[in-house]
Amino acid sequence: MQRIANLIVLKDHQVLLLKKPRRNWYVAPGGKMESGESIYNAAIREFKEETNTIPIEPHLKGVYTMVVQDEHTDMENEWMLFTFVSHDLEGIPFEVTKEGILEWHPVEALAHLPMAEGDRTNLQFAVSGQGVQYGTFVYTHDFDLIKEDIQASYEGEKQ
Amino acid sequence: MQRIANLIVLKDHQVLLLKKPRRNWYVAPGGKMESGESIYNAAIREFKEETNTIPIEPHLKGVYTMVVQDEHTDMENEWMLFTFVSHDLEGIPFEVTKEGILEWHPVEALAHLPMAEGDRTNLQFAVSGQGVQYGTFVYTHDFDLIKEDIQASYEGEKQ
Repeated sequence: MQRIANLIVLKDHQVLLLKKPRRNWYVAPGGKMESGESIYNAAIREFKEETNTIPIEPHLKGVYTMVVQDEHTDMENEWMLFTFVSHDLEGIPFEVTKEGILEWHPVEALAHLPMAEGDRTNLQFAVSGQGVQYGTFVYTHDFDLIKEDIQASYEGEKQ
Repeated sequence: MQRIANLIVLKDHQVLLLKKPRRNWYVAPGGKMESGESIYNAAIREFKEETNTIPIEPHLKGVYTMVVQDEHTDMENEWMLFTFVSHDLEGIPFEVTKEGILEWHPVEALAHLPMAEGDRTNLQFAVSGQGVQYGTFVYTHDFDLIKEDIQASYEGEKQ
């Protein structure tokens, strides 16, 4: 099962996003975990590779079960997504990479920039939600969102 | 890839643990995620099934990459562990289940009760650490811990 870690930096009210060439959809920098890697180390490594910068004090904001249904074969492909936030980074990000174009946008732009609808839910929570979000997203093969089921929890002051 | 969610309840300075018959090792109640399930729903469902009680406001405390090495075949089996904590539960736990015996222990007993060494690290963090812990645990087929590599993060007051 594939495991993807991604990371959104929110700094000075701006978020760093990667515009992918295929549909001009925006994503948070990230990629596949390697075998034996922790999700934390994977998020940092992938972010470094894709941006040429080091995220400062990343923190986990979401764990998602992703299901892609293929309507033709009735097969499902399931994978896990781990979404981190950082509030600072070290270095100057690439502008153009082999994965796409890196751009800073005002955090409010997450509401309307073109992206997968599940990513919008996740990235908005990562930059403004309290605690950790969980959920299942079911997509068609063309990445239309069929279903989402979301939960969240917050540790508060209980301890 | 297998995904396991478990949950430790800490209430009135006591933790609820399951003593498994095989080695008399203690674990937190939990089990395998179902396909399409979120880690949050899996932790609650498995806890209910194993204890007959409902955990109140569970919160994610750890995400771990688990590797079991088979020294004979040189094969590795990798799975993911998601550990939650709750500070209350609803109902009266089973005493004996088909999985083992449910027992309340003072939280300090996590330091010395027999269990996998990685579980000790994880459960102690779940009940007393701040934020979320991440890491990789490498075990032999006999569940001797060969290597652990741990990270943690805490969101603090940044937002």
